Amino acid sequence: MTASSGSTEQLSVAIVGASGYAGGEFLRLALSHPNLKVTQVTSERNAGSPVHFVHPNLRGLSTLKFRKMSDLEAADVVVLALPHNSAAKQIEKFEALGQVIIDLSADFRIKDPALYEKYYGEAHPAPHKLSEWVYGNPELHREELKGATRIACAGCFATSVILALYPLLKLGTVLPKDIIATGLVGSSAAGASATDASHHPERAGSLRVYKPVGHRHLAEAIQELPGNFPLHLTAISTPRIRGILTTAHAWVPDGYSERDVWGAYREVYGQEPFIRIVKVQKGIHRYPDPKLLDGTNFCDIGFEMDQETGRVVLMSAIDNLMKGTAGHAIQSLNIARGWDERTGLSFAGLHP
Amino acid sequence: MTASSGSTEQLSVAIVGASGYAGGEFLRLALSHPNLKVTQVTSERNAGSPVHFVHPNLRGLSTLKFRKMSDLEAADVVVLALPHNSAAKQIEKFEALGQVIIDLSADFRIKDPALYEKYYGEAHPAPHKLSEWVYGNPELHREELKGATRIACAGCFATSVILALYPLLKLGTVLPKDIIATGLVGSSAAGASATDASHHPERAGSLRVYKPVGHRHLAEAIQELPGNFPLHLTAISTPRIRGILTTAHAWVPDGYSERDVWGAYREVYGQEPFIRIVKVQKGIHRYPDPKLLDGTNFCDIGFEMDQETGRVVLMSAIDNLMKGTAGHAIQSLNIARGWDERTGLSFAGLHP
Amino acid sequence: MTASSGSTEQLSVAIVGASGYAGGEFLRLALSHPNLKVTQVTSERNAGSPVHFVHPNLRGLSTLKFRKMSDLEAADVVVLALPHNSAAKQIEKFEALGQVIIDLSADFRIKDPALYEKYYGEAHPAPHKLSEWVYGNPELHREELKGATRIACAGCFATSVILALYPLLKLGTVLPKDIIATGLVGSSAAGASATDASHHPERAGSLRVYKPVGHRHLAEAIQELPGNFPLHLTAISTPRIRGILTTAHAWVPDGYSERDVWGAYREVYGQEPFIRIVKVQKGIHRYPDPKLLDGTNFCDIGFEMDQETGRVVLMSAIDNLMKGTAGHAIQSLNIARGWDERTGLSFAGLHP
Amino acid sequence: MTASSGSTEQLSVAIVGASGYAGGEFLRLALSHPNLKVTQVTSERNAGSPVHFVHPNLRGLSTLKFRKMSDLEAADVVVLALPHNSAAKQIEKFEALGQVIIDLSADFRIKDPALYEKYYGEAHPAPHKLSEWVYGNPELHREELKGATRIACAGCFATSVILALYPLLKLGTVLPKDIIATGLVGSSAAGASATDASHHPERAGSLRVYKPVGHRHLAEAIQELPGNFPLHLTAISTPRIRGILTTAHAWVPDGYSERDVWGAYREVYGQEPFIRIVKVQKGIHRYPDPKLLDGTNFCDIGFEMDQETGRVVLMSAIDNLMKGTAGHAIQSLNIARGWDERTGLSFAGLHP
Repeated sequence: MTASSGSTEQLSVAIVGASGYAGGEFLRLALSHPNLKVTQVTSERNAGSPVHFVHPNLRGLSTLKFRKMSDLEAADVVVLALPHNSAAKQIEKFEALGQVIIDLSADFRIKDPALYEKYYGEAHPAPHKLSEWVYGNPELHREELKGATRIACAGCFATSVILALYPLLKLGTVLPKDIIATGLVGSSAAGASATDASHHPERAGSLRVYKPVGHRHLAEAIQELPGNFPLHLTAISTPRIRGILTTAHAWVPDGYSERDVWGAYREVYGQEPFIRIVKVQKGIHRYPDPKLLDGTNFCDIGFEMDQETGRVVLMSAIDNLMKGTAGHAIQSLNIARGWDERTGLSFAGLHP
Repeated sequence: MTASSGSTEQLSVAIVGASGYAGGEFLRLALSHPNLKVTQVTSERNAGSPVHFVHPNLRGLSTLKFRKMSDLEAADVVVLALPHNSAAKQIEKFEALGQVIIDLSADFRIKDPALYEKYYGEAHPAPHKLSEWVYGNPELHREELKGATRIACAGCFATSVILALYPLLKLGTVLPKDIIATGLVGSSAAGASATDASHHPERAGSLRVYKPVGHRHLAEAIQELPGNFPLHLTAISTPRIRGILTTAHAWVPDGYSERDVWGAYREVYGQEPFIRIVKVQKGIHRYPDPKLLDGTNFCDIGFEMDQETGRVVLMSAIDNLMKGTAGHAIQSLNIARGWDERTGLSFAGLHP
Repeated sequence: MTASSGSTEQLSVAIVGASGYAGGEFLRLALSHPNLKVTQVTSERNAGSPVHFVHPNLRGLSTLKFRKMSDLEAADVVVLALPHNSAAKQIEKFEALGQVIIDLSADFRIKDPALYEKYYGEAHPAPHKLSEWVYGNPELHREELKGATRIACAGCFATSVILALYPLLKLGTVLPKDIIATGLVGSSAAGASATDASHHPERAGSLRVYKPVGHRHLAEAIQELPGNFPLHLTAISTPRIRGILTTAHAWVPDGYSERDVWGAYREVYGQEPFIRIVKVQKGIHRYPDPKLLDGTNFCDIGFEMDQETGRVVLMSAIDNLMKGTAGHAIQSLNIARGWDERTGLSFAGLHP
Repeated sequence: MTASSGSTEQLSVAIVGASGYAGGEFLRLALSHPNLKVTQVTSERNAGSPVHFVHPNLRGLSTLKFRKMSDLEAADVVVLALPHNSAAKQIEKFEALGQVIIDLSADFRIKDPALYEKYYGEAHPAPHKLSEWVYGNPELHREELKGATRIACAGCFATSVILALYPLLKLGTVLPKDIIATGLVGSSAAGASATDASHHPERAGSLRVYKPVGHRHLAEAIQELPGNFPLHLTAISTPRIRGILTTAHAWVPDGYSERDVWGAYREVYGQEPFIRIVKVQKGIHRYPDPKLLDGTNFCDIGFEMDQETGRVVLMSAIDNLMKGTAGHAIQSLNIARGWDERTGLSFAGLHP
């Protein structure tokens, strides 16, 4: 394992909205990335405080202090970790500050303004900009990412759904029946602001369906997945802090075997550095489990086939803040700059 | 709220296999039931120990000691809390000991020996006895339970699936499309024996698909649910100790509205003492959550409709050891003896 | 086990501040208490909502709605579940409304205004009233509670400390050395209001010392415990929702044996309905564990002796909302009215 | 931050007992250490299986398979991760295999055979070897570790106690009064073998005092801490998987101020790369919290002073498998070989 990226390039980084969980995770990764130097972090609420006041894991590892967004100066890379619909409304400002812009919000993910409006409930603030952005999913858009200067980081639940289903749909082996996907999501996905619902006595130990129908990430999945099948998403919050476990049920033709499923995932993902097929006959770790992925950039994928009914149960696990947000973003940036794709993403995860 | 059952009948109870979680829960409930007096509890491993050695919640509340099964004497009610396939093999022995027999295992739930064999992998040991038993689900079999002396307590995951889907299927308003049900299950469902998979450092915080296809409770659901639709079960273990949250996706015809769903559940469950419809527009408790049901006999049911696609997402939550096992059994026994159905089941559950 | 109190008295109850956790727990208990009828509950924030909107465990069990405090009418029992320093400032108002007043806050616990001021940082608002109130700890004040009409419910951490140490101190067998007590506390003890510190991603899984020195409950412990020893409290928040586990280190003279400790606790607590000595040589439940006490009114107490150094490690476990607050209050009220002390407090707790 | 150690030395590593949690953690760290190459891992139970069968976090990161101990061959570094009392009995065998030996068990930590026998209950199997070993605590034994070839890795609870108390004791500012230390410990500290006590339904959510008196790590603390004060340890298991939070109460003379405590810790630990003083006036991260340290090698230390009584409450947090075991061992090895002390230990930990 190496920490070298194969390049001596050094880029300055400004993280806008760095007191949230997505911005904080990007900051953590960037601090140990050999080609990045974080020079500015913004937080309106915490301006003047050192970053470890908000992100205590960074104590002793950085002397950066938050500043207000109005004090932003130029940087090679500008990372936007703002609430949805905030980046797009002031995108010209950020374009003037940085050469490369990475947006961690949903603002530039959807190419079709009508699809955006349907799921986000209002017209897109900058539809003419949408075509400039690459959807930040390396497994589907690696070639487009090379040299890209506008990266719209993929959504976390969307990523777990897309990566679970992509090989079967790409190879055209799925019957045109409804696909049901269920995501079990940790509490960090709802962000860093305390609410009644996030109050520990209420949230700890609970299993709550929070989006049975109409999840916004359906827009991304519809855009990115090949074919035109009815896809349905249901999201449930779990007692975990990080992590998403997604199960998706797809239907294959008679005669399609588990061996064929293996073949499809090997063919499409065989060279992917951050995708692992997890399907073991014995032991206690037979399928993907987000518990094992905290802090890693892996997407673990497993499956099981109900030969009698032609149902394939696909399972994927990610850390929503890593492969679901900041890790994905670093991987995309590595590709964009021609650095080793794995740079800064080598943490193996913990057991137990 | 009253603890009186409306009867002065007093029945002696013997619990066979009382050191497990199902037997222990029945014991807890029976100890505070005004019409029951537990006189015998068996455990091969713990014979000679007081019950609170195994079930520390009962410290100070009972002076019973475990005995070996070979020392069993007659009792009015014999409760069998044995591993699957154990009760059926020696059922004559228990028939000789008690007038009323309640089996908490799967042995007498399935009426069709062929269906049993398909899902349990071997021929039923006593197929000629199957017709004597009533499936212990009060909501579907209340009339049959009255006066019953053989009660096969319904399975926990099966109960959550059946109660979630029953009204729509009974009223015939579901399209003949595949129904996908996913159960999120606590660790107590796997029983009281320690295994590598249940070791706390491995199990805590994990989300593991443990039965993506082929769950045995499918046999019960197929038997009990009206209609003949393809039904698919996937079971996932969660970090909780107790509780099951089930989501099930069914399909209704064009024009069927959420108001119609409300109507169906009110029509079928309107008089049920232990079913609550949970569907709230605001606040943090909008849908069923098993966290709120620990120790209660409620099955909370909610739903949401995707009007665009005709998908209804049904949700049910139970405590797997209560409405999923021992509470269900007490409720069934109350009905069988003509006592107030709610006797001994009045615990409201805790918040927070 | 019986749910009868031995009395047919029926008292109306008004709970002021019933949307908090302490008020909600009193409400839950009162709803199933045969001698109590809750007629009014107040919440400024939730006025107009049914109680189950805030306390979802009560869904289907009560049709009460919250009202504003300004709409309060007379009741036999007025229960005050207000923030500290709020009840005392308007105590005349509540005196005019109810014959019996139970205060769940700290306002009337401390008899000495100077001691109150030292720990609460301001002069007591109604010092002339302090002598009217009985400290609501049945184990220490049972005789005073009989017939009492002003009950100042004991604090949760204070109760766990006091009950753990009382027998040794009462019997005068403790050396005059510093006593260190450490409380491990669940998140519900901090109340129902969401804060940055209670945000699930921050609070879940954390172990935080939150009051290393200067805990206010020290005032109660100093007041209630016999002798005049240096006592020190440290409070640590744990990932649990309910429950306190307290360890306290006291010092006994040479020759004092573990058998003597047993004797002391048997002598003082032998007839107590809600205190259990938990000290087992084998098995996995050797000492008190708050996990087993959720929803119960027990205080489990254990101990171990370091014969070499004369150190006795005392351990106590309670549910902070039950024996630490609302259960304690119901027990005190039962004594005050001459009802069976255990009325309404029969829940055994769950295992597992 | 750099991953370079300042050396190109390459050592082969054999890990004996690599299927346990300590051995697995050393393996994880060694796989990404630039100067180490793991060539052998043993497990009697899992011989023949790839390491990721037991440690699923290593899937895709190593092709090593477990072998039996009888198949061990020579290696530059032999790491012993065996049950206590196992390494010492066969130490000659391991001496013949490797130049550098690191023992993660307690076998060679205690220099005085009588102290060992008192706390471990039997005579030491190889007392003549004890003087060859350096106690693997870099903060106290950095100079001795340089060039060392026998490193006895310090115990986890002992480390948290020693590092919390060392500066005050070293500087001689503690009064000769009893010091009480309490450790809150995660479940991984009990090892990888499933037991009744570690069964998830029993262990999850529990707070159990498991060693109120007589903890074996007292031997290490007595040996390592300056001065001759009565020290008392109590250990409590918490619902966490990793991590220890220790509080220790020491007594300082009149006039000793919090500023003096600050000074003491700065003086002794000011240059330590893995010790951070955590004492913040505001915000939610005021004191050490083991939650923030999963996977890191930090020991965070905080304190608070009760000026009125002269009590100082010291707090320390570590990851028991990192700074408590394998991280400590890597840090010690780095020092022994003259590599940058931080090599392979750069993970910052996660928030949230």
